[in-house]
Amino acid sequence: MNFYTRKWVKPEDLNPNGSLFGGTLLRWIDEEAVIYAIVQLGNPHVVTKYISEINFVSSAQQGDIIELGIEATHFGTTSLTMRCEVRNKITRKTILSIDKLVFVNLDKDGNPTPHLKKEITYAYMGIDNTRLD
Amino acid sequence: MNFYTRKWVKPEDLNPNGSLFGGTLLRWIDEEAVIYAIVQLGNPHVVTKYISEINFVSSAQQGDIIELGIEATHFGTTSLTMRCEVRNKITRKTILSIDKLVFVNLDKDGNPTPHLKKEITYAYMGIDNTRLD
Amino acid sequence: MNFYTRKWVKPEDLNPNGSLFGGTLLRWIDEEAVIYAIVQLGNPHVVTKYISEINFVSSAQQGDIIELGIEATHFGTTSLTMRCEVRNKITRKTILSIDKLVFVNLDKDGNPTPHLKKEITYAYMGIDNTRLD
Amino acid sequence: MNFYTRKWVKPEDLNPNGSLFGGTLLRWIDEEAVIYAIVQLGNPHVVTKYISEINFVSSAQQGDIIELGIEATHFGTTSLTMRCEVRNKITRKTILSIDKLVFVNLDKDGNPTPHLKKEITYAYMGIDNTRLD
Amino acid sequence: MNFYTRKWVKPEDLNPNGSLFGGTLLRWIDEEAVIYAIVQLGNPHVVTKYISEINFVSSAQQGDIIELGIEATHFGTTSLTMRCEVRNKITRKTILSIDKLVFVNLDKDGNPTPHLKKEITYAYMGIDNTRLD
Amino acid sequence: MNFYTRKWVKPEDLNPNGSLFGGTLLRWIDEEAVIYAIVQLGNPHVVTKYISEINFVSSAQQGDIIELGIEATHFGTTSLTMRCEVRNKITRKTILSIDKLVFVNLDKDGNPTPHLKKEITYAYMGIDNTRLD
Repeated sequence: MNFYTRKWVKPEDLNPNGSLFGGTLLRWIDEEAVIYAIVQLGNPHVVTKYISEINFVSSAQQGDIIELGIEATHFGTTSLTMRCEVRNKITRKTILSIDKLVFVNLDKDGNPTPHLKKEITYAYMGIDNTRLD
Repeated sequence: MNFYTRKWVKPEDLNPNGSLFGGTLLRWIDEEAVIYAIVQLGNPHVVTKYISEINFVSSAQQGDIIELGIEATHFGTTSLTMRCEVRNKITRKTILSIDKLVFVNLDKDGNPTPHLKKEITYAYMGIDNTRLD
Repeated sequence: MNFYTRKWVKPEDLNPNGSLFGGTLLRWIDEEAVIYAIVQLGNPHVVTKYISEINFVSSAQQGDIIELGIEATHFGTTSLTMRCEVRNKITRKTILSIDKLVFVNLDKDGNPTPHLKKEITYAYMGIDNTRLD
Repeated sequence: MNFYTRKWVKPEDLNPNGSLFGGTLLRWIDEEAVIYAIVQLGNPHVVTKYISEINFVSSAQQGDIIELGIEATHFGTTSLTMRCEVRNKITRKTILSIDKLVFVNLDKDGNPTPHLKKEITYAYMGIDNTRLD
Repeated sequence: MNFYTRKWVKPEDLNPNGSLFGGTLLRWIDEEAVIYAIVQLGNPHVVTKYISEINFVSSAQQGDIIELGIEATHFGTTSLTMRCEVRNKITRKTILSIDKLVFVNLDKDGNPTPHLKKEITYAYMGIDNTRLD
Repeated sequence: MNFYTRKWVKPEDLNPNGSLFGGTLLRWIDEEAVIYAIVQLGNPHVVTKYISEINFVSSAQQGDIIELGIEATHFGTTSLTMRCEVRNKITRKTILSIDKLVFVNLDKDGNPTPHLKKEITYAYMGIDNTRLD
């Protein structure tokens, strides 16, 4: 799994107890997953359909840098399943992991439609060293 | 289950496809659940520990009014388990449901500590008609 | 008066003196009132026309849970008048009260139009126990 | 009355009907008034105590530029009373006016304390041409 | 140079080190410059084309009041060049200065188009005392 | 240059003309640069000191996915110089580039202090395939 998007935990992201607000973290994850899905499926019209259980393993504090990793685990006919891990960028300690985030590929009328993808397209992954991809 | 907090879906809450951004909805749910937990446990220091699988049943559009319902389903020694349902306030159509949101009661050092609660305290529920509660 | 929407005062809601920013509180009230008006009038196109004097009775601090109560007090031909009270959910201490918030019912061209409502529709009030409503 | 702060009405500021959300406007006004009070009283610790009735005269649309004017109208012993007008910068059409916004000067313990000011200090008003002030 | 828009540095504007987040300051400047350009060019459709080097001279802290000054320095055929200074309103200490912000005047298709302006229109500057302008 | 953080352009990020608000983009860049600097210098206390000229090459629209690339170009005694490029993730079209962003390494009193770094530490770069780094 590669980690791309990073966040710097600022005061606006905190709960009143001074640690990262869980709802803010969930918002970041949903955005990162939808970006991954759009890039892989080549279609901007995808929706979150299902998220499997979420374990909050550890917290993050003001000033922490966290990074979000997403990886496709299954290409369905109209869906894409991904797993997610969020960790502290410096200590690499896991903050949260989710086994399955399922997004559905939609047509212009908002109905599920086949996406014809069967595997991860590395060329979309954004690292210039194309050999790795 | 009672429904308290309401939201009016504004442009700032939308994804680029024009429907309610899933991440924003998750943020609202987490806040509503933590409020419910704080009120029931009588302790402002609680943290999200676990969220069971999330089914996105239907979407919401700009201008929709949605309401969030939370209900305690189990009082553990140091934890509180709740279920959640989000629905369109006008049509009552379910938008999302979550079977289990588990929060943990913490002491001042951030360690789990017993909360001594065993059932829902209706007096906290905010309806002035105390008979109902 | 029933209290529905709750807020958890987070760092993003504070003024530099560390208490709830008044402007943020006013924003929350306006949203709650417009939701109430839309639900009662059955029309999403309503606008704030007038707010009577506002007394800031007490403040709120980081971590406080506050709840917002709105109640219709007069159904005009094209308008709806409500009163509002905001209080600390735990201590029930009043934070702010407003005697009159007047919203106007608009047609599709943005002109005032009769709403034909004469009293509170309790079925809209979101408590499943319909007897109470 | 001089007008200082300007706002550009962006999508994030709109209600679902596509015009400026009233709650956002109230938030802007409260911030502008508190800035004016801090500058005039020379004390960062002031709080909103009272706002007189608010008439929403006209609305603002996406892309509009609006400007906020505040003017002190009475220096009490521990309070400062201001009036406010918000207008469209280009058309100069009034959007909203408020006759009285009363802020109270506080000491470090949060209690009202005399501010010893009796009139507007123009040197604080931010126009370099001091003759005008 | 006149200073109009003021900001009160609130917790939501801070970086994790407790001072004003640079990115938030840049966002404020861009908005103030676009407002100035729209007012001067009489056209809401302008875009940021170029910003010259930015020196962060000093920082701002929570509770500080800062003010933003913009001044047109050159009217090109389709462009407007401005300079910017941000300072602490109370101490007048410079926080940041930018020599050139270039905005381009666009037609409805998004192409550069002549704006026909050659000098600052003071009548737009928002001070009621028109002699000053 | 590697690209990590991605953004999905949502309605909340738009200017009134419907394209990505320049100020929001600058805010994203500043956050990404400070994250890069903190990771490289191993010190959370860094500040933006200087940003060289910024060319806005092309715009971004609602729904676009953009990615931000940062690369260290010079390790000074107390400073770190980076360059930045922002591009559309799908089309790879450049949106904006900045040659120099200079951050300064501070000690606990806020004074510049040597960071002792001389080159990019690839181990911090977040790609699990360490050969690449």
